Amino acid sequence: MANDELKQTWKVPEPTLRRLPWYLAFVKLLKQRGETSISSTQIAKEINVDASQVAKDLSYVNISGKTRVGYEIDTLIDVLEDFLGFNSTHKAFLFGVGSLGAALLQDTGLGQYGLEIVAGFDIREELSGTSINGIPVYHMSELSTMQKRYGATIGIITVPVDKAQEVTNHIITEGIKALWNFTPFRIRVPEHIVVQNTSLYAHLALMFNRMNSTN
Amino acid sequence: MANDELKQTWKVPEPTLRRLPWYLAFVKLLKQRGETSISSTQIAKEINVDASQVAKDLSYVNISGKTRVGYEIDTLIDVLEDFLGFNSTHKAFLFGVGSLGAALLQDTGLGQYGLEIVAGFDIREELSGTSINGIPVYHMSELSTMQKRYGATIGIITVPVDKAQEVTNHIITEGIKALWNFTPFRIRVPEHIVVQNTSLYAHLALMFNRMNSTN
Repeated sequence: MANDELKQTWKVPEPTLRRLPWYLAFVKLLKQRGETSISSTQIAKEINVDASQVAKDLSYVNISGKTRVGYEIDTLIDVLEDFLGFNSTHKAFLFGVGSLGAALLQDTGLGQYGLEIVAGFDIREELSGTSINGIPVYHMSELSTMQKRYGATIGIITVPVDKAQEVTNHIITEGIKALWNFTPFRIRVPEHIVVQNTSLYAHLALMFNRMNSTN
Repeated sequence: MANDELKQTWKVPEPTLRRLPWYLAFVKLLKQRGETSISSTQIAKEINVDASQVAKDLSYVNISGKTRVGYEIDTLIDVLEDFLGFNSTHKAFLFGVGSLGAALLQDTGLGQYGLEIVAGFDIREELSGTSINGIPVYHMSELSTMQKRYGATIGIITVPVDKAQEVTNHIITEGIKALWNFTPFRIRVPEHIVVQNTSLYAHLALMFNRMNSTN
């Protein structure tokens, strides 16, 4: 999320990557309504972003519009979904089957966007052998064995704050390449490991603060 | 989350509001370990943010450190939790009890951060009268009645994309002041209404893209 976390310069800027899913959601809606083409001006108007910005964002994606007609909606959806990685399957393990962890295991929507959570892990013995939404939960000590079976590349971190760094260190040694960190703890990782922070609590704090400011 | 959504200048900058929960999580961890005071330099070192930035962020919060000793941890936790709104109760309705909506109703962690989801709403008749995690689910047509009973100020939007704007318009007329939008749709609201966008799919897209870039 935070720009200041990115030490290297990425090919596609973060704000662009944040906006592309908005465009995708919008053009999918247009498709539902029977539309077949759209211009960047129309996208801009609906999404409330400059038309030049929309064109620039879409220039990162391998698609070209036609003068007057704009983009073909079917193609735009395919190309955006491919570009955003929603058409590929990324196997993930979830660490910490507490309240938030269990909730995420129940969200089948993530699967439609290319994230397949294949197993959950927890240190509580009583959870081992259970399953949530058809996804098996294993004891943390079985990680090595299960990684050989599943070959997951993503680790979803929903452990308590005081375990976040320890779990991070451990799972990286098991070949996890990217961490989706739901804890408010700033985990540290080697340079080649990707971290995506999604702290719902930070978002809550922002919303509460803005609410007070507008009252 | 996106900076470009904010038309007005807020008193506390968004990056500061994003970092403060990191500091809070870290000092709570120190308290668990028995520490009693901390300097902004120590926070900076651990969180990987400049010490001057930490001091500046904390200057928005009503707390002052002592030379050489730093901040008293108990006080810092109290003051940060108050400032971030985690100590107050904010009543919320959740709209759209699908996969993600039901998952959020099951996450008891949000309650510890000041968000009390008091009811869920859906247009599917069969969900009406049920409850998830002790939270009642009502039919959308009961919103007006239930708002009189509960007086919620926050609306959590987990409806399908094609219903996001319609539901937004509707619930604003019922007195909802802030929207926590989990859909990838860019909802439009009057100026006095607060919107917090948390699209898990946009975060996934970012992570997938970064994974491809580091390989």
